[in-house]
Amino acid sequence: MRVEIINTGTELLLGRVTNTHLGFLAQGLLGLGLRVERQVTVPDGVAIVEALRQAMTRADLVIITGGLGPTSDDITRDAAAEAFGRKLIFHPEILDGIAVKFAKRNLVMNDLQRPQAMVPEGGVVIDNANGTAPGLIVENDKTVAVLLPGPPGELRPMWTNDALPWLQKRFAARLAPVHEVTLRILGIGETRVQILVEDAVKALGQIEVGYCARPGEVDLRLIAPDENLVRQAADLAREKVGDAIYAEGAETMEQVVVRMARAAGKFVATAESCTGGLVSNRITNVSGSSEMFRYGWVTYANEAKTNELGVPAKLIKEHGAVSAEVAQAMAEGALRASGADLAVAVTGTAGPTGGTAEKPLGLVYFCLVTRDGKMQIVERTLVPTRETFKYMASQIALDLLRRALVS
Amino acid sequence: MRVEIINTGTELLLGRVTNTHLGFLAQGLLGLGLRVERQVTVPDGVAIVEALRQAMTRADLVIITGGLGPTSDDITRDAAAEAFGRKLIFHPEILDGIAVKFAKRNLVMNDLQRPQAMVPEGGVVIDNANGTAPGLIVENDKTVAVLLPGPPGELRPMWTNDALPWLQKRFAARLAPVHEVTLRILGIGETRVQILVEDAVKALGQIEVGYCARPGEVDLRLIAPDENLVRQAADLAREKVGDAIYAEGAETMEQVVVRMARAAGKFVATAESCTGGLVSNRITNVSGSSEMFRYGWVTYANEAKTNELGVPAKLIKEHGAVSAEVAQAMAEGALRASGADLAVAVTGTAGPTGGTAEKPLGLVYFCLVTRDGKMQIVERTLVPTRETFKYMASQIALDLLRRALVS
Repeated sequence: MRVEIINTGTELLLGRVTNTHLGFLAQGLLGLGLRVERQVTVPDGVAIVEALRQAMTRADLVIITGGLGPTSDDITRDAAAEAFGRKLIFHPEILDGIAVKFAKRNLVMNDLQRPQAMVPEGGVVIDNANGTAPGLIVENDKTVAVLLPGPPGELRPMWTNDALPWLQKRFAARLAPVHEVTLRILGIGETRVQILVEDAVKALGQIEVGYCARPGEVDLRLIAPDENLVRQAADLAREKVGDAIYAEGAETMEQVVVRMARAAGKFVATAESCTGGLVSNRITNVSGSSEMFRYGWVTYANEAKTNELGVPAKLIKEHGAVSAEVAQAMAEGALRASGADLAVAVTGTAGPTGGTAEKPLGLVYFCLVTRDGKMQIVERTLVPTRETFKYMASQIALDLLRRALVS
Repeated sequence: MRVEIINTGTELLLGRVTNTHLGFLAQGLLGLGLRVERQVTVPDGVAIVEALRQAMTRADLVIITGGLGPTSDDITRDAAAEAFGRKLIFHPEILDGIAVKFAKRNLVMNDLQRPQAMVPEGGVVIDNANGTAPGLIVENDKTVAVLLPGPPGELRPMWTNDALPWLQKRFAARLAPVHEVTLRILGIGETRVQILVEDAVKALGQIEVGYCARPGEVDLRLIAPDENLVRQAADLAREKVGDAIYAEGAETMEQVVVRMARAAGKFVATAESCTGGLVSNRITNVSGSSEMFRYGWVTYANEAKTNELGVPAKLIKEHGAVSAEVAQAMAEGALRASGADLAVAVTGTAGPTGGTAEKPLGLVYFCLVTRDGKMQIVERTLVPTRETFKYMASQIALDLLRRALVS
């Protein structure tokens, strides 16, 4: 089964709108064991016919989004009729249905709605529960094309409730399951992960191994035709990589930390300098975080560290604000003032200015302390690009919490 | 000039990662007066060669993202060499540069880094200031191909600082100037902006007007072939819309606030509940923010509001944590404890749980106080989707600071 997606819309190619349809549709297809082999974005207009014709030479299934509305630039149904060599047939019952939708909103339907009632000959009509333009399915001997409306609020329910079940039934005989596990790894480089894992995992059998690197971390993706095999591969990768794997699948570091702290009934506090509130912001992005987070400090200036967290001014003077000593005093101050079970502190220089020979830009100290007396200092030098630096530092701070919550 | 973009990466087609490169690159190209005619996503692998070959039959410029890293699935440079019929040449100076980057981070380079030093014969090498894989430019009589690394933290600066200027120079003779001004507006809906602005602006002459709506705000884009004309249009739009315009061009709300506070020599403090540190995080994303920001509090729990900001427990009991009274007490506490010139407080319920009939989800109170006695309360009900809620609330809090800094 070869699957391709065609997204139509000039706004996508102007960079005004981000394409979120691809990811949404791809995840649904993956649930059927189908993978998207190619995606193309074309502007509203004749390029749609050409893109569809090309896709039809390759694909068993083509999904086209957008261009089903009533205005002059909505020509996807015409493009499909042309590419499949079908006439467009007027379906009065569709137009009647649209009129009813207008009436319910106390609006009078105008003539511009009529194109939405045109269906390529032999096509299947999918009612649009959240808008006027119906979805359409057209097929010939080789290719099935599914046409979906562009607005996410219309496309998403139509896809989930109608199109996916239809595809599952239509292709039942041809669907071979695909199983995927993604392991998210912090603090080990991409090539090191490859050296640790790839040969061992591939020796298990038909496993596809992929890597997606981000600053300071890497996603290891394992895909196999068999669930046991992919699970076996994931277990082997876990054995090789160890506890640098912080999450599996789509779970984020902050979600892991919130989940683990809630499960342990523990509270976490944060004391941030260079990350400026990013650590607490990420924690509080997770629903339910109020059950494990009560206090956070952003002590950006030295005097704030002293006044709010009780870091002795003398300590800052002696060791500098970017030092293991100050990180520890910040964490201890946060633990004391918040009554939390764990506290993490971050202090460093995000740049682009402020570094010295002794304390270079990108140098950052972390300290984790726990109510039961554990204390851990980490020193790192991170790429000195401000927002990346902050993200990487927040990731390391959260990882310290995660590791402390494991043990 | 025909421009196409090829995004490589299996993770995009699996729906794991959203393609933000397209929008970013498209906006940069628009600045040169170039529009993207077609975008395609292909998996890591041989499909890249075929996609590039197809694009080369149509396009003058092809931009390819991703697949330049060191691992086995990074094959974009091989694909480009094949499509252009060039040999790959080893450039020892690139590998030496990578070794230096490893050394700076106290890491030892392994042999797997070597492919990143391979360059298609005759290609231009673009140094990667934020990673190891250099960008590459390859061209023949018909097509220029620009290969950029996939990580946004590497791609974005390379594109802005190196690739765009290179393209501007290379295609100078063929670029028709386009002048663009974007005005960023908070708190007025898209259609209202259109009613206020569009007819008046279009009456000035050949102006293209565009809108890009995001939750709670809208970008008004004015494009004209002449610089005076677009400036005249922007001035007219400013007259019509007024001080809801918070920025022009790419400047962000937090950049405006930091710039204005520094210019005024004033310090700002933050007291956050529902935004969880997002306001201080955004402020500290701006370089130089340490000159206007020293103290921030994330008082997520009621007891934190009382212990850290001196909000009377009785006040919280009487009015609830989500109330004008508590917002005011938080802001006053932050102003007092920080010695800042302005303080802003945010308290609300981000959801998805925690709302009541009287205090619905999405209800949020803001308070701005200044050292010279100004006090302002704002009550809003925002869309109760957690991260969108937090973003919109942080935007309003920053806007209160901006407006206070104007007056």
